[in-house]
Amino acid sequence: MAEPALDALVEALRSLPGVGEKSARRMALHLLQHDRPGAQRLALSLQAAVATVRHCVRCHTFTESELCGICADPQRDARLLCVVETPADQAAMERTGSYAGYYFVLMGRLSPLDGVGVHDIGLRELLARSCQPEVEEVIVATNFTAEGEATAHAVSEALKARDLRVTRLARGVPVGSELEYVDLGTIAHALVDRR
Amino acid sequence: MAEPALDALVEALRSLPGVGEKSARRMALHLLQHDRPGAQRLALSLQAAVATVRHCVRCHTFTESELCGICADPQRDARLLCVVETPADQAAMERTGSYAGYYFVLMGRLSPLDGVGVHDIGLRELLARSCQPEVEEVIVATNFTAEGEATAHAVSEALKARDLRVTRLARGVPVGSELEYVDLGTIAHALVDRR
Repeated sequence: MAEPALDALVEALRSLPGVGEKSARRMALHLLQHDRPGAQRLALSLQAAVATVRHCVRCHTFTESELCGICADPQRDARLLCVVETPADQAAMERTGSYAGYYFVLMGRLSPLDGVGVHDIGLRELLARSCQPEVEEVIVATNFTAEGEATAHAVSEALKARDLRVTRLARGVPVGSELEYVDLGTIAHALVDRR
Repeated sequence: MAEPALDALVEALRSLPGVGEKSARRMALHLLQHDRPGAQRLALSLQAAVATVRHCVRCHTFTESELCGICADPQRDARLLCVVETPADQAAMERTGSYAGYYFVLMGRLSPLDGVGVHDIGLRELLARSCQPEVEEVIVATNFTAEGEATAHAVSEALKARDLRVTRLARGVPVGSELEYVDLGTIAHALVDRR
């Protein structure tokens, strides 16, 4: 059964992260059988997003204007700059409601094995942004994974020479958890960072 | 952060089966950050597939012509008609290399809870197809799930009045399996259907 348009769709769906041959085929059959309007909508919104979504010139997150909503907001605390890996991490910080400063979004993390080096995460732009006179503290909020820690280390090293406070999110026992079920590394860190 | 094109893309990706809010956002960020050509390709292939993929007029499977490749092949055994639920099931039958007849693809299964009734699975078209004079046997190869069994029952009932042999794929112990690890219902069926 050679159906080139169907096979091309299956192949294209495999560009999606976490989607293999079998899921891609299931998705293609589902869209064609049950949801052609959804398929059309997806095609149009892919094209619209590719055409309009770009990077904020100040913080590098995705935006559809020159500046993202946060960078364009003059009410925030300009003394604080929080460095996160992705827009999803930034959204998590925002949801806490306990941070009022600006962000710099690396749009990735250092990952030498995947060929992601310091140029790919915009370290130079971060340095330029951090050197603006109003910035007093850079909070490094990369993930607490091996790659996130390596990224945090590179960011801290790069900022060392500047007259800036560079801090890292506290490691410790998650709120609501019982010690018995928390992994040992976390407890050890919480002990070292006790206050 | 109101980014309408990005939010619309996330929403549209949720049309895909098995994709929730979080996966959809991860897919959108991945495409925009790492694979814009892939996103363009996906958009174009969605549009091409929606425009060109339709149902074979004889067997109802997806095709880009009037007849699918199998129905258009005069070499197959016209006495046999195999009823399957989906093109994926049809592909599995084809891969066995042990079936040379034609197919009828229901493009679904009976599922009253989801509002899928006998009209949605093309039972009337199946009857018309089965009544063509060359057809001698209809092999019902719907899945051995509750819904597949109900569909098989409906198909068999509908074909009863006609002068046709109606058979069902044999249930039994899968090839290569050890009895100890096979579920009891399967063993019981294999015992009843022993030969």
